[in-house]
Amino acid sequence: MFVNRRDVQIQWGDCDPANIVYYPRYFEMFDDSTSILFEAAGFSKQDIVKKYGLVGIPMVDTRAKFYIAATHGDWITIESRIESIKRSSFEVTHKVFKREALAIEAFETRVLAGRHPDDPARLKSAPFPEEMVVKFMNG
Amino acid sequence: MFVNRRDVQIQWGDCDPANIVYYPRYFEMFDDSTSILFEAAGFSKQDIVKKYGLVGIPMVDTRAKFYIAATHGDWITIESRIESIKRSSFEVTHKVFKREALAIEAFETRVLAGRHPDDPARLKSAPFPEEMVVKFMNG
Amino acid sequence: MFVNRRDVQIQWGDCDPANIVYYPRYFEMFDDSTSILFEAAGFSKQDIVKKYGLVGIPMVDTRAKFYIAATHGDWITIESRIESIKRSSFEVTHKVFKREALAIEAFETRVLAGRHPDDPARLKSAPFPEEMVVKFMNG
Amino acid sequence: MFVNRRDVQIQWGDCDPANIVYYPRYFEMFDDSTSILFEAAGFSKQDIVKKYGLVGIPMVDTRAKFYIAATHGDWITIESRIESIKRSSFEVTHKVFKREALAIEAFETRVLAGRHPDDPARLKSAPFPEEMVVKFMNG
Repeated sequence: MFVNRRDVQIQWGDCDPANIVYYPRYFEMFDDSTSILFEAAGFSKQDIVKKYGLVGIPMVDTRAKFYIAATHGDWITIESRIESIKRSSFEVTHKVFKREALAIEAFETRVLAGRHPDDPARLKSAPFPEEMVVKFMNG
Repeated sequence: MFVNRRDVQIQWGDCDPANIVYYPRYFEMFDDSTSILFEAAGFSKQDIVKKYGLVGIPMVDTRAKFYIAATHGDWITIESRIESIKRSSFEVTHKVFKREALAIEAFETRVLAGRHPDDPARLKSAPFPEEMVVKFMNG
Repeated sequence: MFVNRRDVQIQWGDCDPANIVYYPRYFEMFDDSTSILFEAAGFSKQDIVKKYGLVGIPMVDTRAKFYIAATHGDWITIESRIESIKRSSFEVTHKVFKREALAIEAFETRVLAGRHPDDPARLKSAPFPEEMVVKFMNG
Repeated sequence: MFVNRRDVQIQWGDCDPANIVYYPRYFEMFDDSTSILFEAAGFSKQDIVKKYGLVGIPMVDTRAKFYIAATHGDWITIESRIESIKRSSFEVTHKVFKREALAIEAFETRVLAGRHPDDPARLKSAPFPEEMVVKFMNG
């Protein structure tokens, strides 16, 4: 299924007093990576909101396994892949490489969410637009 | 084993354009909660570094399952528990409650890390200090 | 004018490899402090959005002067004060104390913002609700 | 003096419920920009720490004026410039452009900091290495 790769340089402010990346920062990078994966497929977050009337693609379940630490100045490659699509949920994996080595593996299950018709403060899962499914399946 | 609870108010800057918490922020809260759990047991991060000569307690594996969203102004309770201790690794769970309801469950495996004797830029797992084990087991 | 004080403990993840607070974190604390100041006056961000129909209180101009560094475990006190109110803008100062010593001084000019009537994607300054002015002036 | 430009795409997680950039994020971008400016001049943060024995370049005084808001998907250009160098402090300005328009102006005064000889927990200003001065003056 659809894959995107991008290179990210670890910055000073990504790191903690142990001089390695403060791990919540990786989840920020993964969230960015999923957005950029969608954008690479032709579906920006702005489109998701304005064209498809959704609120976002909130996280339902995520896991990350950390094998190799990184520090400021390091370049990493994040490879993000749509693994599966259901009616309104989907799975993404992120593999982080530091040079050739697999440094982190992360897994996400997200849903497409719209506003609940009875209460706009609540979210409600929404079905995948057909053209997104087609693009992710064949792209 | 050792448990700590704390109340946190979600702030404006914790939330994203969908008006719910940007999920990487929860991992920041969980990292704080693990530190505060250690501090409540008598082992501050400053002690971990200065008294025990460790570099930190880096994350090896973490997972979070999100059931109920929260927005700015909401108060949540984070209940953090040391689940198990091995020679140099340990498991923590965080349960987030929004009023009475279980909103998030998170799982962490971390290690105690020191500097590698051959290369101070690398980390190396370190054994649990005896008094920490005793405290967490009986606390 | 209206003043609020709160105590904040610096966390591990607030600090950078120099082992002091990564300064953008202070701006997060100041943004939280301004929200909490409003909430203490009876105007939560949820009220600002829902009751008064505003989008937020975006920053126009901010400055911070850093005198004394802090590290994880330190407790600081943030004292926040509404200094002046104009038609749709206002000034806030934050003084950070580490024990008795003045550690940081910060200055903010913000506006009350609503949606632009011709283009909801744009923001437009909005006048201060009368009851807010009264409260901040006399509170 | 030395100038560097870089393009940054605003991400979903940079934005708050008003759907514009949460302003502390800009200070993170500016901190990254100053590091990248130094790296472009041949002085990475790793060099600053390892080769020159410094702890970092902490902020002393910073100000930002916000003229035009940005939202997720927007590309901005950050132009960063060393404005002046004294014995151990220096000034940087950042200009943010959204398309052709000046969106933000930011000002920084930082110092070069080393460990205090009497107390490694404290920082102490350090003189600029000669080769950095030469590079920034003529680069």
